Amino acid sequence: MRLASIRTEAGPALGVGSRAGDTVVRVDVIDPDAPTDILELLALPPDRLRRLSDRADELAGRGGPGVLSVDEAPLSPPVPRPSKVVCLALNYRAHAEEGGFTPPERPVLFLKGPHTLTGHGADIVVPPLSRRIDHEGELAVVIGRRCKDFDGEDWQGAVAGYTMMNDLTARDLQLADIAAQHPWDLSKNFDGFGPVGPWLVTPDEVPDPQALDLEVRVDGLLRQRGSTAQMIFGVRELLVRLSAVMTLEAGDLIATGTPDGIGEVPDGSVVEVRIGDLGVLRNRVTHTPILERKQNQ
Amino acid sequence: MRLASIRTEAGPALGVGSRAGDTVVRVDVIDPDAPTDILELLALPPDRLRRLSDRADELAGRGGPGVLSVDEAPLSPPVPRPSKVVCLALNYRAHAEEGGFTPPERPVLFLKGPHTLTGHGADIVVPPLSRRIDHEGELAVVIGRRCKDFDGEDWQGAVAGYTMMNDLTARDLQLADIAAQHPWDLSKNFDGFGPVGPWLVTPDEVPDPQALDLEVRVDGLLRQRGSTAQMIFGVRELLVRLSAVMTLEAGDLIATGTPDGIGEVPDGSVVEVRIGDLGVLRNRVTHTPILERKQNQ
Repeated sequence: MRLASIRTEAGPALGVGSRAGDTVVRVDVIDPDAPTDILELLALPPDRLRRLSDRADELAGRGGPGVLSVDEAPLSPPVPRPSKVVCLALNYRAHAEEGGFTPPERPVLFLKGPHTLTGHGADIVVPPLSRRIDHEGELAVVIGRRCKDFDGEDWQGAVAGYTMMNDLTARDLQLADIAAQHPWDLSKNFDGFGPVGPWLVTPDEVPDPQALDLEVRVDGLLRQRGSTAQMIFGVRELLVRLSAVMTLEAGDLIATGTPDGIGEVPDGSVVEVRIGDLGVLRNRVTHTPILERKQNQ
Repeated sequence: MRLASIRTEAGPALGVGSRAGDTVVRVDVIDPDAPTDILELLALPPDRLRRLSDRADELAGRGGPGVLSVDEAPLSPPVPRPSKVVCLALNYRAHAEEGGFTPPERPVLFLKGPHTLTGHGADIVVPPLSRRIDHEGELAVVIGRRCKDFDGEDWQGAVAGYTMMNDLTARDLQLADIAAQHPWDLSKNFDGFGPVGPWLVTPDEVPDPQALDLEVRVDGLLRQRGSTAQMIFGVRELLVRLSAVMTLEAGDLIATGTPDGIGEVPDGSVVEVRIGDLGVLRNRVTHTPILERKQNQ
C-alpha cells in the first residue's frame, strides 16, 4: 500500500496510491470516516486498508473529484512533521571512500530539523548564504512505533513504511565547516533541504529494504547509481544501534545515507530520486536571484 | 513572570512561579479557565498574567494543593516538545580558544532532537556507549512567534522567554568524530542530554540577555563562570542570522553556546547551571551500572 499527504485548501488530507503509483486518491473521498493521521490510518484492519487500495485503483482509471496525478498533486512529506529526522553519514562504503573517509565502525549521524522537510514537486529556493547545493538520494525509513533499546526482534513491525529523501547539502558551507573542524549541521538545515516522498510504501511491499536499486538524475542525466545492499549499517541494525542512545518515536524519519556519485545541482535544475518501486521524488532547486541577493546582503 | 511545565498524574499542567523563584503553583488551581499551552497562556492580557503571579506569591507563603517547591515539583522543560532545538557551537570567544578554534565569522550550529529534553531535577542515565560526559551551561531562548528572514526589528517581541540548558555532551564520542572529520551530533543526542529549565522567564524580567552572569557547578564546585556579554553572536543577531536559512517556529529553543571551563561530570555527580535570575537548573548524571552494561554489550 502506498500513502501520501496532500495539501488542500481545507487543510491536510491523506491520499492512497494506485498500485501503478501514478495516481493519488483522497482517502476522505473513498472513506469519509477514515482517520486523517497517517499512522492511525495504517493501524486500521488489513481488510479496510485493502479496500482503500482497491478503490484507488478503480478510480485511477476513471478520474473524478479527489483523483489526482501524483506529479500534479500538492504533496507534503508523508509524515509532514516528525519529531526528528536522523540522517546517516558515510553509510555506503563507496561514498565514504569518495570523500576520503574510512568506513565508520558505528553509525555516524546528524540531524535535520522538521523545517527542512518538503514534498514531492516542491521548488526549493536557496538563500544567498550558499552557492553550491548537492544532491544526496537516500532511502528513508518511517518509524512505526516507539523504540528504545530495541533488540531487533520483528524489526519490520517497527517500520511504518519506506520513502525517499533528497538530503540536500550546501556543500560550500559544509566543506568550510569540515576544514575548520566545526559541526556542519547548518549546511543540511536550510528550509526545504529535505524533500521527502512522494509515498510512504508499507513494508509488505518492500520485503527486503537492503535489495533496492537507487538512482539520482539531474535534468535527466544519471548522477548517482547504487543499491541499498551496499549500506554499511542496514535498516535493522540502525534501529538497534540508534535506539540504544535515543528513543525513536512513531513518525520519526531515518535517512539511511547516500551512495557515491554526489554532485552539484546547478541553479534551476530538477533532481529526481528513484529507489526500487518507491516511485520518483522530483524537485527543482533554484538560487535566490542576484538582484534579491544583493538587497539581502 | 516565570512559568514552568509540571508532570501530573492527569497529564501535563502549567505552573506559575513565585517572584522569589522558589515555589511553583499550578495555574489550573489559580485560574481553571487559563490555557494549558504555555505560549497560549503568554498571549493572555497582561492584567490576567499579573494576577497569576500575584496569586502565586500569596500561595507560596501559605502552601496548599498545587503549591510545590520548585526543587521537588516533577518538572518538564517549559516547552516540552519544540519542533527543533538549535544549538550554537563556539559562540563564546574563550570557549572557542580553549578548544583550539578561531572564533567563527558566522554562527556555527548543530541540532539536538526534542527527545534529548528533560526537566529540572530529572536524573540522566548515560548508556554504555559513552564513558565521558561533559557539562555545558547555556542561556536558551524560547521563540515566541514564527520568524523567517527576520530583520531584527522589535526582536524582544519575537522571544517568548529565556531559560537555561545544560548541553550535555559525550565528549569521548565527539572527540573521536572530530578526529575522523565526522559530524558529531551523536555525542549531543542521547536521551536526556538536554536538561532545560526550571523556568521560562519572560523578556520583561530579562531586559538585557547579554548582561547575565553564568555559572556551572559540579557537586558544588565552580566549573564554568562567564557572562553572556562574551557571546560572539548575541540573541538579536542569532534570530536574524538563523532565520535567514531556517524558519524558526514558536516554541523552538535556541541554545546560545557555552563559555569556557567545560569539563567532566563524573558518574553520580550533580550539575547546577545558574544564569542571572533565571533560577538554578540541577540534574544528576549517572552511568549505566557495570553489570547492566556488560549484558547490553
